[in-house]
Amino acid sequence: MPNSGSRPAPKANQETKTPRHGSAADFNIERYLKERAQLMEGALDRTVAAHEEPGSQLIEAMRYSLLAGGKRLRPVLAIAACEAVGGHPDDALGLACALEMIHTYSLIHDDLPCMDDDDLRRGRPTNHKVYGEAMATLAGDALLTDAFRVLARSPHGRVPAAVVLDVVAELAQAAGSPGMVIGQALDILSEGKATDQATLEYLHARKTGALFLAAVRGGGMLGGGDSRQIDALSEYGRALGLAFQVIDDLLDVTASTEQLGKRTHKDDAHGKATYPALMGVEKSRRFAHDLKERAISALSAFDDRARALRELAIFVVERSL
Amino acid sequence: MPNSGSRPAPKANQETKTPRHGSAADFNIERYLKERAQLMEGALDRTVAAHEEPGSQLIEAMRYSLLAGGKRLRPVLAIAACEAVGGHPDDALGLACALEMIHTYSLIHDDLPCMDDDDLRRGRPTNHKVYGEAMATLAGDALLTDAFRVLARSPHGRVPAAVVLDVVAELAQAAGSPGMVIGQALDILSEGKATDQATLEYLHARKTGALFLAAVRGGGMLGGGDSRQIDALSEYGRALGLAFQVIDDLLDVTASTEQLGKRTHKDDAHGKATYPALMGVEKSRRFAHDLKERAISALSAFDDRARALRELAIFVVERSL
Repeated sequence: MPNSGSRPAPKANQETKTPRHGSAADFNIERYLKERAQLMEGALDRTVAAHEEPGSQLIEAMRYSLLAGGKRLRPVLAIAACEAVGGHPDDALGLACALEMIHTYSLIHDDLPCMDDDDLRRGRPTNHKVYGEAMATLAGDALLTDAFRVLARSPHGRVPAAVVLDVVAELAQAAGSPGMVIGQALDILSEGKATDQATLEYLHARKTGALFLAAVRGGGMLGGGDSRQIDALSEYGRALGLAFQVIDDLLDVTASTEQLGKRTHKDDAHGKATYPALMGVEKSRRFAHDLKERAISALSAFDDRARALRELAIFVVERSL
Repeated sequence: MPNSGSRPAPKANQETKTPRHGSAADFNIERYLKERAQLMEGALDRTVAAHEEPGSQLIEAMRYSLLAGGKRLRPVLAIAACEAVGGHPDDALGLACALEMIHTYSLIHDDLPCMDDDDLRRGRPTNHKVYGEAMATLAGDALLTDAFRVLARSPHGRVPAAVVLDVVAELAQAAGSPGMVIGQALDILSEGKATDQATLEYLHARKTGALFLAAVRGGGMLGGGDSRQIDALSEYGRALGLAFQVIDDLLDVTASTEQLGKRTHKDDAHGKATYPALMGVEKSRRFAHDLKERAISALSAFDDRARALRELAIFVVERSL
C-alpha cells in the first residue's frame, strides 16, 4: 500500500458499484441514507460472518444486535464526510463498519441489568434477554475489539497507512475513557442528581458526541480532506452530535415505545437529566434547530458534494423517530 | 514519521534509559523481568493517569486493576521479542501497554458475577467488589478501547506506520471474536461437558494462546524482524502459550489461594476441563516440559539477543506461582 505522496487515481475496479452523488436535482436524502446504510450492512454481514465452528453462539449473538436495523447514522455520516471532501464511499467503509460495531457494543452493554437494565431495543428483546448476560457481555466485547481489526484491515488501497493509523487512534479516543465510556460512567453517576446545562453538555459531548465527531473527522481524513476541511467537519460534527442528543431526549418524552422500538419515558423514571427537563420541550426544540443551523453553516466552504451532510443535519433534527 | 524504506539509526535520545541486554555472563532473568515490567508500568501509569475531572471514578477503577501487580508476562514477551530481532525496548512499549490493558480488561470482565463470579484477584477484592458491576464493566470496556489508542499513538519514530497498523490488526484479531473472546465463550459453553485434548487445545489456543502469540509476533514486527524471524517467533509463542495454560491448570490443583492471590481449586468446582483432569498431574508436567523445549528450539536461528525469550520459556514452566 502507498504510504506517502499524492493519492493515486481511483482504481477502475472499486469494491462496490455504489453511485457517487447524483446531480443536485435528483438528490434524495432518504435514498442516500438507505443506499449508504446498505453498502455498510453488506460489509458488516461479510465481516461478522455466521459460521458453524465451536463457539458460534457468540457470533450469533453479535449478529443478532448488529444486523437488527437501526438508522445507521454514524456510518452514513462517515461515508458522507468522506464524499464531501472528494473521497470514494469505499475509502470510509472500514470506518463505517467499525463505528456501527462500536455503537452496537455500547447498546448491548448499556442494556445489561447492571447498567440501564432494558428489555427492548430496536423493537426486539435485548441481547442479554436472548443470549444471557455472559454471552451478551462477550458479544459486546467482541464487537468492540473486532471494530479495530475491521478498520485496520479495511482495503485502504488509496489511503496512506499513516492516515488509517491516525483514524484508529481518533476512534479509540472517541470510544474509550476520554469519550464514550466516561460519558456512560457520568450518566450512571449523575442519576438522580441536579444537573445544569454545562454539565449536561459535558456529559453528552462524551457519551454520544465523541463518536459523531470521530465519524465525520475520520471520514474526512480517509477521504483525503485537508486540515481546514477537517476543522470544519469537526464543528459540524460537534453541533450535530449535540442536536442528535437533544432530539433523543425529546423523543423519550414525546414518542411511544411502539414508535421507537425501545422503552420510552425512562429518563424521568431513572432520574436522568435531560434537555426537556432542564429547559422545557419548546426551548429544547429551538435549541436543536439552532444547532442544526450551526452544523450547516460550518460547511459553508464546501461545494455540493457536502449536500448529503447538510441534508443529514436536517434529517437528524426533523426526524420523528 | 517515516513510512517506508530502511529503518533509520536509533535516536540518541530514546524515551527511556533502559539498558539493552548485558553480556551473556551477567544476564539474570528475574532482573530482566523486573526491569522490563517497570518500564511498562511507568508508561501505563502515565497513560491511564488519575485526574480530578468528572467521572474520575472510572479512571480509578481502571487503575485499581491495571496497577495491581501481576507477572506482566505478555508485555515482557513483546519487549523481549522486539529485542530478539534487534529492536529497542521502546519500539514495543506501546504494544506492551496495550497487551497488559487488554489482559486486565479480560480479567475484570471474567470475574463479573455473570461470568466466573470471582471475589479475589491478585490478592485483592475483584474490581466489581470494590466499584460495583456497572463501573467494573465500564472499566473493562475503557481499558480494551484505550489499548488501541495507546498502540496507535505510541511514539513509533523508527517504526513505519504500516507496521504499526498491521500490529493493531493482529492485536485486535487475537483479542476479538476469532481469539480471546471466543475462547472465553467456549470456556463458558463447555462447562460441565466432557472434553478431549483436541477440543481443550482449540479452546486454549484462543482463550490464552492468541494474546501470547500477538505479543511475540507484534514485538518482532515492531522490532523490524523479517518474515522468517516472525515465523519462528510464532512457533515459540504458540508453544509457550500452551505451556503457560498447562502450568496454570496445574497450579489451580496444587497451589493454595494464598500462594496465587486468587481462588484456586475452582476449575474442578466449575466442572471445567483441565490438563490435569484429562491426563493426570505427572503427564501434564511432562507435556509442559516438552512445550518449553519446543519453544526454545524454535529460536535456534537467533543469537544471544533471544536469551531473554529462552529464559522466559524456562521461567514460565518452572514457576511455582
